Amino acid sequence: MSQIQTLINSHKEDWALDQEYYKNPEIFTIERERIFFDSWIFIGHESQINKKGDFFIYELLNEEIIIVRGKDMKIRAFFNVCRHRGSRICLEDKGNIKRLTCPYHAWSYNLEGNLQGAKSLPKDIEKQSLSLHKCGLEVIGGMLFVNLSDNPESLDNLKRDLEEPFALFGFENLKIAAHKNYPIEANWKLAVENYQECYHCAPSHPEYSLSHTLKIEGEPGFNKAQERMMSNLEACGLKDIEINKDFNRKDPDQEQYAYSRYALFEGYLTGSKNGKPVAPLIGKISEYNQGCSDFNLGPVSFFLAYCDYIVGYVFTPTSQENCQCDVYWMVNEEAEEGKDYDKEKLTWLWDVTTYADEEIIINNQKGVNSIKYQPGPYTDKERSTRRFIKWYLDELQNAIS
Amino acid sequence: MSQIQTLINSHKEDWALDQEYYKNPEIFTIERERIFFDSWIFIGHESQINKKGDFFIYELLNEEIIIVRGKDMKIRAFFNVCRHRGSRICLEDKGNIKRLTCPYHAWSYNLEGNLQGAKSLPKDIEKQSLSLHKCGLEVIGGMLFVNLSDNPESLDNLKRDLEEPFALFGFENLKIAAHKNYPIEANWKLAVENYQECYHCAPSHPEYSLSHTLKIEGEPGFNKAQERMMSNLEACGLKDIEINKDFNRKDPDQEQYAYSRYALFEGYLTGSKNGKPVAPLIGKISEYNQGCSDFNLGPVSFFLAYCDYIVGYVFTPTSQENCQCDVYWMVNEEAEEGKDYDKEKLTWLWDVTTYADEEIIINNQKGVNSIKYQPGPYTDKERSTRRFIKWYLDELQNAIS
Amino acid sequence: MSQIQTLINSHKEDWALDQEYYKNPEIFTIERERIFFDSWIFIGHESQINKKGDFFIYELLNEEIIIVRGKDMKIRAFFNVCRHRGSRICLEDKGNIKRLTCPYHAWSYNLEGNLQGAKSLPKDIEKQSLSLHKCGLEVIGGMLFVNLSDNPESLDNLKRDLEEPFALFGFENLKIAAHKNYPIEANWKLAVENYQECYHCAPSHPEYSLSHTLKIEGEPGFNKAQERMMSNLEACGLKDIEINKDFNRKDPDQEQYAYSRYALFEGYLTGSKNGKPVAPLIGKISEYNQGCSDFNLGPVSFFLAYCDYIVGYVFTPTSQENCQCDVYWMVNEEAEEGKDYDKEKLTWLWDVTTYADEEIIINNQKGVNSIKYQPGPYTDKERSTRRFIKWYLDELQNAIS
Repeated sequence: MSQIQTLINSHKEDWALDQEYYKNPEIFTIERERIFFDSWIFIGHESQINKKGDFFIYELLNEEIIIVRGKDMKIRAFFNVCRHRGSRICLEDKGNIKRLTCPYHAWSYNLEGNLQGAKSLPKDIEKQSLSLHKCGLEVIGGMLFVNLSDNPESLDNLKRDLEEPFALFGFENLKIAAHKNYPIEANWKLAVENYQECYHCAPSHPEYSLSHTLKIEGEPGFNKAQERMMSNLEACGLKDIEINKDFNRKDPDQEQYAYSRYALFEGYLTGSKNGKPVAPLIGKISEYNQGCSDFNLGPVSFFLAYCDYIVGYVFTPTSQENCQCDVYWMVNEEAEEGKDYDKEKLTWLWDVTTYADEEIIINNQKGVNSIKYQPGPYTDKERSTRRFIKWYLDELQNAIS
Repeated sequence: MSQIQTLINSHKEDWALDQEYYKNPEIFTIERERIFFDSWIFIGHESQINKKGDFFIYELLNEEIIIVRGKDMKIRAFFNVCRHRGSRICLEDKGNIKRLTCPYHAWSYNLEGNLQGAKSLPKDIEKQSLSLHKCGLEVIGGMLFVNLSDNPESLDNLKRDLEEPFALFGFENLKIAAHKNYPIEANWKLAVENYQECYHCAPSHPEYSLSHTLKIEGEPGFNKAQERMMSNLEACGLKDIEINKDFNRKDPDQEQYAYSRYALFEGYLTGSKNGKPVAPLIGKISEYNQGCSDFNLGPVSFFLAYCDYIVGYVFTPTSQENCQCDVYWMVNEEAEEGKDYDKEKLTWLWDVTTYADEEIIINNQKGVNSIKYQPGPYTDKERSTRRFIKWYLDELQNAIS
Repeated sequence: MSQIQTLINSHKEDWALDQEYYKNPEIFTIERERIFFDSWIFIGHESQINKKGDFFIYELLNEEIIIVRGKDMKIRAFFNVCRHRGSRICLEDKGNIKRLTCPYHAWSYNLEGNLQGAKSLPKDIEKQSLSLHKCGLEVIGGMLFVNLSDNPESLDNLKRDLEEPFALFGFENLKIAAHKNYPIEANWKLAVENYQECYHCAPSHPEYSLSHTLKIEGEPGFNKAQERMMSNLEACGLKDIEINKDFNRKDPDQEQYAYSRYALFEGYLTGSKNGKPVAPLIGKISEYNQGCSDFNLGPVSFFLAYCDYIVGYVFTPTSQENCQCDVYWMVNEEAEEGKDYDKEKLTWLWDVTTYADEEIIINNQKGVNSIKYQPGPYTDKERSTRRFIKWYLDELQNAIS
């Protein structure tokens, strides 16, 4: 039996992961290939590249992907690797281009990725065989997702099941008001484990805990919070739906997703310092209310939708020991900065919270590195993290089977 | 035969170590487990944590140990790793606490390391099973030693044999007047090899060589220096004892130690710039004299005791290629800085000497890394280094047997 | 079959190298031993150490070589490693010394590398057995080359075949007017591949392309450039010789070399901003002309000789992922800086060109690291790079056979 199989077999259900999951280089290789190079990952919004030839670069581990809007207005994604001797083609991280010209020997490609110019190319070599490598790209309600695999999973079920909430929050009519990258000296799983539970919110996030209900079923106060949420949701036409809260891979050919709603505390209309709105209403929402929606689109992209803005969270590794959290704040595309929203106020809550989490996660990693670290039991308040661990072990098991 | 066994077999007695001892990662793994995680290491003095709840953190490789004085005034040591999900518990490097509370999910432990609070812990899990991991700690004449092993060697023989010198120098009534950490880009063994011989003192340490006799048996001047030492020692009631100068592991269940005395040059009463005292007398010593005592307590902790201060040296790796030297200057606990001693004067000699050694050791490592490096012969003036190498090879041999 | 043999077998002739050649650590080990520690490498000019006892240090990977002029005026090379415990002996990078004294324990060697002083050395050890390790060194027309192997290849054929051009350019009567080290975050082969072709010159080096003809046989303009070169060469007594342009290892016991000449564009008399001379004439050249000579001495040392200066290029790795380019500008030894030449003007062309290449090569490495990188076809304008790849694969094949 392989070492990894033995490790998986020895896992104690509902307890944290063994140190080896964070350190074994073979496991990181599997994670890279099976999770990060074979999942749909949120990378931005189509409004970032509105004009023909607009592009930006998305980086993941050693890969750079060119996201570019073609002359036909279609958005495509290509690996930023010249087919001649492999040079990077785009050196700027965004801009507008007529064609993709490699700075090394001036090989040039059109915006569909086809090689057009290559001086002195031997006669027996066909230009068609030297197109740029395509990268999977899908636009879902204006949101851009890439998948580096040659055979990416389908997003059909995700799109179908989440059609109503996507429409409700008007994803297509958003724009990115702010984007911040938080590097974290820890394995990516510790960051996702942290994001998935709010057991740590009371001790660690006073700012968040003021506004967001943390009650779980059975806890005193749970029923009251639930009632308030329901009445709030109904008031603005929201149904209390939950979609695949278990985040199971029900169909192996389909990307995974989950969706649920919950309530804010009384007096809080959005995720902000004082609970007051920080931007104009989005989508079909007609009045500020205390509902709040959680999306989990693919394994490492998360969205939290308020009435006036949506915050997107993406966790990716930069190495086995380091990861990063990209946070995107999206508002109504018609909102004007300075007039309709103040960037400081908009970003305040999730900026302080992410900084606090960064420190927590780094200190978690340090302890996990100890010779005395032993996985401990998850509590009832860490259900989503348990769910994530279950999903993760399934993926690892599938990879080695 | 294993590669390491072949290496040990090919070692030429009384010649330096082969390059592989400094580079083979398997050897470093053995050193970490068998030497650094299974030896008593000096980490400070109990006077640093005089009050209930006083603590400080000791770091060794990736490990952090919390040294804390309990409500019963007893000092204990715990691994700084929460039993829930492994986070560091103490984030400050020293302070005073009532209990040990993890900043992540607020699990709290009392100062005996027992889990007291853990909200939402599943009912079937017993708190007693989730105490902090204890670390071996012993207080010897006020000096704190830790041992990270679950079955540390006994210190009984060491304590028994060194009772007289510990009492003479009044270890219990000292305090740490200064502590400095010197990082060295070299394998830890090169640092210990350097510390153990004074063959390099004449070319490299003019400051030290002025005051400390370097003669060895047979050398011109040896007998005269010896006589002066004897008369000096007798004058202040010191016996010329030597304890286990060979640093043999006579009893495998006992930690190793060695002790000896030697003389300073005429006109020098202590290790200082001009030979004049730099602090009040310590222990039972009644007048300034030219005696000087060497202690070797465990494999990497060394002490040099003068009449007015004791300097402690501890060598530990931070990786296979890097190590650090922690130097502690200890004076009579009643001495007041500024009044009874001047920190600059007190630390001058061993600060300049350690800086000089740092450079020497780094340049030694650079040459040892060369493809042309070949171990050379130890001279008669490198006896203690030979002894150290012998001890080291025994430890390595035991580890792989 | 070994993994490397499989890799070599799968190489597609005249296409770029697979990613593995830049990343497999076993391949780097072979390259280090078979190419860098067993080839003649240009390291400077004898005029740098004109007086007895003058020395400088040459560094290559972890090795340091002392290049020193003895009391007999002969230049010798030694590994900078003491035979006692391996310390570096020379800590300065250049200077003048009477003997080589190790700073650690003061062992001293004469300038022939023989151990002279070693206090307390055991009687049974003979000093003769502890001489410094010699390094291969040859002076060719004043130029210094080292070879770290114990059995270096002969330079006899190289010296014989290149006698005429060495004399023509007066290599012996040069001095180094400037030396600059350019670190490049890329595998060394990408740097040499870049240096070897001028397909990238038009898009990347406008400065160079203004002055240097880039035409290849068959291209429009080639014949005319060729004619101009010929008439220019004849005008100043140069023959249009080509020596071993294929850079084949014809005799396995002889170091490799190549030599050829080409023309500058009309109006350009040397490699400078405006084509005007930047230093006095060198060697036997009697008037400024548009000829230009390329030398390839050993695998990684290149020289470009104009009428008034010679630029030397040496590529060496600092690790598998990093390399450096050392550029030397050599002028007539009698030329005085400030009077006969201006350092800025002299170095301008190859400084801007090397900086541009540095960026190109780094971006090439980034793309080569991609999971989607595939070797592409070399064009007809990359002949010398093809030649280099062929030579490199032969060397690798020989190493594993």
